[in-house]
Formats: sequence, C-alpha cells, structure tokens
Amino acid sequence: MSLLSSSTVLFQNNTNKSIQIVFKPVKYNGVVFHPVKHNGIVFHPVKHNGICRCVSTPPAEMIDYKTKVSRNSNMAKLQAGYLFPEVARRRNAHLLKNPDAQIISLGIGDTTEPIPEVITSAMAKRANELSTIEGYSGYGAEQGEKLLRAAIASTFYSNLDIEDDDIFVSDGAKCDISRLQVLFGSGVTMAVQDPSYPAYVDSSVIMGQTGLFQKDVEKYGKIEYMKCTPENGFFPDLSAVSRTDIIFFCSPNNPTGSAASRKQLTQLVQFAKDNGSIIIYDSAYAMYMSDDKPQSIFEIPGAKEVAIETSSFSKYAGFTGVRLGWTAIPKQLLFSDGFPVAKDFNRIVCTSFNGASNIAQAGALACLSPEGLKAMNEVIGFYKENTNIIMETFNSLGFNVYGGRDAPYVWVHFPGRSSWDVFGEILEKTHVVTTPGSGFGPGGEGFIRVSAFGHRDNVLEACRRFKQLYK
Amino acid sequence: MSLLSSSTVLFQNNTNKSIQIVFKPVKYNGVVFHPVKHNGIVFHPVKHNGICRCVSTPPAEMIDYKTKVSRNSNMAKLQAGYLFPEVARRRNAHLLKNPDAQIISLGIGDTTEPIPEVITSAMAKRANELSTIEGYSGYGAEQGEKLLRAAIASTFYSNLDIEDDDIFVSDGAKCDISRLQVLFGSGVTMAVQDPSYPAYVDSSVIMGQTGLFQKDVEKYGKIEYMKCTPENGFFPDLSAVSRTDIIFFCSPNNPTGSAASRKQLTQLVQFAKDNGSIIIYDSAYAMYMSDDKPQSIFEIPGAKEVAIETSSFSKYAGFTGVRLGWTAIPKQLLFSDGFPVAKDFNRIVCTSFNGASNIAQAGALACLSPEGLKAMNEVIGFYKENTNIIMETFNSLGFNVYGGRDAPYVWVHFPGRSSWDVFGEILEKTHVVTTPGSGFGPGGEGFIRVSAFGHRDNVLEACRRFKQLYK
Repeated sequence: MSLLSSSTVLFQNNTNKSIQIVFKPVKYNGVVFHPVKHNGIVFHPVKHNGICRCVSTPPAEMIDYKTKVSRNSNMAKLQAGYLFPEVARRRNAHLLKNPDAQIISLGIGDTTEPIPEVITSAMAKRANELSTIEGYSGYGAEQGEKLLRAAIASTFYSNLDIEDDDIFVSDGAKCDISRLQVLFGSGVTMAVQDPSYPAYVDSSVIMGQTGLFQKDVEKYGKIEYMKCTPENGFFPDLSAVSRTDIIFFCSPNNPTGSAASRKQLTQLVQFAKDNGSIIIYDSAYAMYMSDDKPQSIFEIPGAKEVAIETSSFSKYAGFTGVRLGWTAIPKQLLFSDGFPVAKDFNRIVCTSFNGASNIAQAGALACLSPEGLKAMNEVIGFYKENTNIIMETFNSLGFNVYGGRDAPYVWVHFPGRSSWDVFGEILEKTHVVTTPGSGFGPGGEGFIRVSAFGHRDNVLEACRRFKQLYK
Repeated sequence: MSLLSSSTVLFQNNTNKSIQIVFKPVKYNGVVFHPVKHNGIVFHPVKHNGICRCVSTPPAEMIDYKTKVSRNSNMAKLQAGYLFPEVARRRNAHLLKNPDAQIISLGIGDTTEPIPEVITSAMAKRANELSTIEGYSGYGAEQGEKLLRAAIASTFYSNLDIEDDDIFVSDGAKCDISRLQVLFGSGVTMAVQDPSYPAYVDSSVIMGQTGLFQKDVEKYGKIEYMKCTPENGFFPDLSAVSRTDIIFFCSPNNPTGSAASRKQLTQLVQFAKDNGSIIIYDSAYAMYMSDDKPQSIFEIPGAKEVAIETSSFSKYAGFTGVRLGWTAIPKQLLFSDGFPVAKDFNRIVCTSFNGASNIAQAGALACLSPEGLKAMNEVIGFYKENTNIIMETFNSLGFNVYGGRDAPYVWVHFPGRSSWDVFGEILEKTHVVTTPGSGFGPGGEGFIRVSAFGHRDNVLEACRRFKQLYK
C-alpha cells in the first residue's frame, strides 16, 4: 500500500458529460486522507454527507457538487460552536458515557419554574380567541402592540421620559442584539466587558466588525475587551479603555453576577459622551437586583443621548421558551450626522422582523398587570433563594465567590485552573453541568458560572455533590 | 428681519465649560430654517425631539447632542419606508381625511379568517401546560422542536430526501430571509424576480450587497433584476440574466400570483448549477397551487445541491400574528470551499435567534395533524374562492388579470399608468386599500396587486365598488 499525493479518475457526471476529477489529500477532523494504491487499485478520499471515506471508483453522485459562492469570511472567523450548544454537546457526550447519571443542569441559565398561572391563562385566552372572528388578529405592528409598549414604558421607565414609541417589542434580547448589529453594520468598532455574554462578540464577528481570532490572547482583533475582575470590582477601568463606537454593557452582568452602581454608571455614561460612543445596555437581570442600584441606564442623567437598552421577560417570567423581549431607543440618540438611531432600527424591524408572537405579547401584558408583577417577583424570589444556597455552599468550601446578590449567577474562582478543566471535573465527578468562565471571554478563565435556575431539590442535591467533591 | 447664513452663540454646556456654537441653516421636512435677525435679536434654528423651530437663546439642553457614530451607509441607501408600512401610512392618512369611510383592506396580504379551533386549542393547551411543573419548558433547540422538524420534513418533503435536521424552524420566512442575508454577508451578489416581495431587495441593501439606488431606472446597483412580465409568462428569460451568487425566487410568486412549472424550475436549477449559484426559494404560497406544479424546489432533481427553501404557516393557517415558519437547507448544499451552508446557518441561528415561541410551535404541530391539515385546506379554499371573485370582477371590467390561480394575489394591469396613482385613485374613490405594483420593483409599474385575504362580505363589497369605479 502506498500513499499518493494525488490520483485522477475519469467518469461521467449527472449530465453524461465525461469529466476528469483529480483527488488530492483531504483533511477531515484533523486526519489527512490520502489517495491510496493497494493491490493495484487506487482508493480516493471522498467526503459525502459529512463523512470522509476512501472508495475505489466513486460513483458520480458521491462527488460533492460545490457552488461557486464563497463562504462568508466572517463566519469562518468564529471559534468552534456558540458556547451554550457546546456545553450541551459535552453534557450529552457525558450522558452517553454515563447513561445512568442523574445529571443536574446549572449550566446554560435556563429557567425551570412554571410560568405563573395568571400569565399562562392570558396566553391561552389569546390563543383561543384567535379562533373567533372577533378575537382574530393577523400581522401586528412590527414594533409591538401599543398596549404592551405603553405598559413596558410605564412599568420599567416611569418618570424616565421614555415614551411608548421608544419601545420596540421583540422575540428576545439576543435577537435584538443581532438586529442592532445589522443596524450598525460592519464599519463600527465595539467594546465589551470581559467576561460577557458571548452573543455580543459573536454577532459582532458575524457582521464583520472584528479582526481574526488571536489564539495567543484568546481575543478577536479590533474588539476592545474591558477587563472585569475581582480586583476592579467587576467594573472596568475606563481610563484604560480605548474609544469605540459601540459599548456593550450588561448589568447585572452575565456571567459575573455583578451590578454596576449609580456612580459607576454615571462614569460609563460620561465616558460614552466624551467619546461620542453608543452604549448597548443589557438589563435582562435588572429585577434580580437586591438594592437600589439603577435598574435602567436611563436613570443616569444624559444617558438618553448615548444609550440603547435591551431587556427580556425570559428570566423574569420564565419566558425563555415563550420568547419576548424589548429594546428601548430614545429619540435623543443620534448618529454623527444627526439622524435618529431609532428611525433606522424601526426600518430594520420592519424589514427583517414581523413582530413578536401575538400570544407571547398577551403573556407579557399579563406579566405587567399588578397580579403578574407580584407573581413574577415571587418566581424571581425563588431563584434568589437558590442563589443564596449556591453561594453559601461555595463560601463554606473556602472558594472566593462573586455575584449572586444582584443576579441569578454565582461566579466561583478556581485560581490558576483552566475553566474547561474545572467544568469537566465537575461534570465528571458530580454530574452537574456548569458553564466554564472562559466561554465568556479570556477574562473568565479560572472561573465557573453556576446558574441558580433549577428546581430546589436539584439545587440542594447539586450543592451536596459540590460539598463532597471539594470538601 | 434678515436671513443669516450663520449665527454664533456662546453659552455653557452641561459640564459648565463655556462653548461656542455656530448655527447654520437647517433643512427640515424640505424647508430650510435660517438663522434670523429680527429687532436686533438673533433667532437660531434648533431641532429638538423631532421638531424644528427657531429660538432666540437656545438653552443648553435644546442643543442636540450627536454621538460620533457614523450612520450605516447601507441604511442610508434604502428608499423611503418599507412598502407595507408605507401603504398603511397612506391608508391612515386617507382615514384621517375621510373619518366615515368604510375602508376595506385588500392591501398588505394580511390574513383575516380565524385560525381553526383544532390549532388554537393546541396552542392554548401548551400555554396552560407552561404553568405546570411537568408541562413547563424553557429554552428549546434554536433549530426548533424535534417533533415539529420531523413533521415538517414528512409533510412537505416526503420522498424528497429532506431530513428532519435539514429543517430550521423559525418565527417566519421574512425573518429567515434576513438571517440568510447575514449568513451570506456583504460579499455576495444577488438576483431577484422583478417584481418581487420587497424584503429580498431591502435586506440585501441593508447587508451592503448592493450599490446605490438609481433613480432613473428605480433599481439598486449590483442587483440583477429578472424581469417577469405577461410577455414571458412571468418567468424570466434566463439567457439574459447575468450570473449572481444568490438567486431569490418566489413561486407561487408574490405579487404576480404566478407559479413556475416543473420545466421552468428545472431550467432554473440548471441555470444555478451552471453558474454555481444558490437559489433561495420562497414557497410560502405553495399550498395555494391549483394543479400539480412543484410545491417544493426539491422536487427538481439536483436542486438539493443549489437551493435553500423557506416557507411559513402565515398564509396557510392564519399565523401572520402567531409567527411560525421554516427554512430547509440540504446537507448537499456547499460553499465553493466545500463547507456546508447548513452548518453556517446553524451557527447564525444559535447566535442570533433563540428558537420560535414554543406555543407557536405547538400550533404548527397541530397544523400538521390530519385534522389540522384538513382545516388549513379549508381556510385556503375559502381564500381561493375570494381570489376567483376578484379575478372575475376585473375580468368582467375588461382588465388584463394575472395570477390568482396558484396564489391568493390578483395582478391587475393598468397599462401606461403609475401604480401609485392607481392605488390612490382606488383608495380615494372606493376606500379599498390595494398595493401598488411598483412597490415590488420597477417591473411592477402599471400593475396593482389585489389580495384575496378578506372576509367574504368585504371582498364582495370591494368588488361592487371596483365595478362602480371602472364600469
């Protein structure tokens, strides 16, 4: 048997034309498949349906037809999979190896508690009404239903001079983040807390705002990573941050669980103002706050001229599967040429979106009724109790533990260790899924994020196992 | 009083620094506001909260702060509003002028008939279950629930070798079109039927795939417009079409109502194959077809190597407000470097989307049950009767009428007239909202699209009014 650098086959393609194909070595999953000569027969490496194998005379239909469309080079920049599907993949691989393991997921931050009945019954009612002539509705406004926009404005932005028509109802903050990236286009630069929710960076890469991934520093070129560590209280040293067009800022933060104080946010707004930057403020965990830190960036004077706020019912009402969020863009926020940002976002929403599901919108409206708000707060209170249990556990084991007070995430320090290693160790030995800190950026290395979303029994059981492992 | 070319004011800004501001003439809504000197006092034009006025000494907070972020130049290329909001705007203006008018909308193609009870009750059930521990679910797979993916594959692609995991469930075809544009990025070229559903072109402009809008020909630079006219049976002369990376193709077509035959689609697939292009095939009206023309592009041999198909429950089950669609991307579809397109789309979906609402997915699953399919076909049958009524009306008035047989749209020819004028005439004299053909591209000039989505009484009344106007 001998390896060849290439081999040539002549055969007929679909349209009966005789064509000649040259087979060269193929790299697949890190392994190089060479054409091989064995007992006088040449075997050619062929990729088909995602599998690479060597065949003697490949039939025409096994030759992959390739279009002449180039792959978007920005897509090629992305590293591996998006974090959470990758966590799920490793969890499933673990389950395959350990079919009897009682896996507990404190990983991807998925809500587990039922949606309060006052909210689901409003959705069921709306669904049922859609089968009646009086209750049927088709396309809604792309920006969301008027009543809901008004309820969001008055509930979350009362006295902040954010009006109904500044609110764009959406199918979730993650989706809006990508629509905002499309709005700003490939020509802007961006800053991000490090660590942070990976959708900011990944959507920026996809839009072509960044350079290549730099393996040595685990960062993409052209992104300004604002390091958030225990040393700086998880608020970046802005004097060390270069100007960018866009600043993504999440508070309370995912994954560190820290919330910025009024003084810090005032600094951030002033920083944006001095630089003429736009802050995209993700407040999806604001209702988890334990004290009177600002729940909205618009509580900071002048913020309306430099900030967009995006948020969601996902973690308030268990709407991770129902899908409902919103983005607030004040009329005062202007591009350098004076054009209102909200006007362009409106155009994006009208062109690329058709409004959130009317049933989900009915649910959100119920969330903002007095009973709905009370019920949401009860669910949030339950998860906050979980957070306390997890924090106490890691504290009792002598770990340095951060976050937790203002967000449903506990940020546990394993100094000097690789967070994927710790993730693997915890999964292997306790069957508990967490999230490795480095998945949120290089600044997350050495940390593990433990989510407080779980049934109480599971959280208690996970904590028992943590105590066993790290006692 | 004298007009000045500029005026200068010295005052203090928020941070108490003294700054000098030069006021120049401001153009607003087509009117130029000059600085004005009157009785010795200089008045300066100031824009604030979207209103332009002249003030004598503008207080600091009235000076619009502008960020230093440049507006995305692709957004600036877009012409006026997106078509349908623009139609709605004109409809509302008409209503303001004629508050007593009994307006009938056969315009934006919005469904009007209730959703069959077998479908709404499945959604209500799912909504109610979300308030129980057993029935609650959070994040679903970004690609959609397995059962639904399987049901879509087996219902719409049985025997076509499209597998469950080739199906990406979404919140609608319009949203998927934009996600596909993000997937392909700014470097591709595109072709589109002229006329066509405006989301294809507008999303391409937003992504930066096109040149500027050329007023003289009413086309964007770098887009290949494939003219579809009565003369070519609304199927483009492919020999006159230049190669592009992407070919948007909608059949049955919105707005012309024409569906391509098997022979025509075979030509289209061969054309794509010869050019190495990718077809994005929009089949959102396939179930309206009256004969055995292909309902899916994948019925054409070889299409899986060159095509993506996107579709929706909007016009089948009245889901325009519920929001549910899907996109099918075969594994065989490869970029020029051999990378599967579906893999990149999966990454887009995981990064920019979080799955369709679980309640809407329960509805879609019910649509595909035997009872659901029967109910959907009844609704479609009802709209097809509407279509016949509209076609007969315009036929009887001596118009050349196209479409209608395979789609819920009637395409009426008003040769030599501006379609916005005809739109205005019909709205003014009959209070019926239609859609001007030129809103779908220059090839739509001289046509009006009449949608068959309406209550029967309204359709009959609209036709009575058409007969009065054009008798």
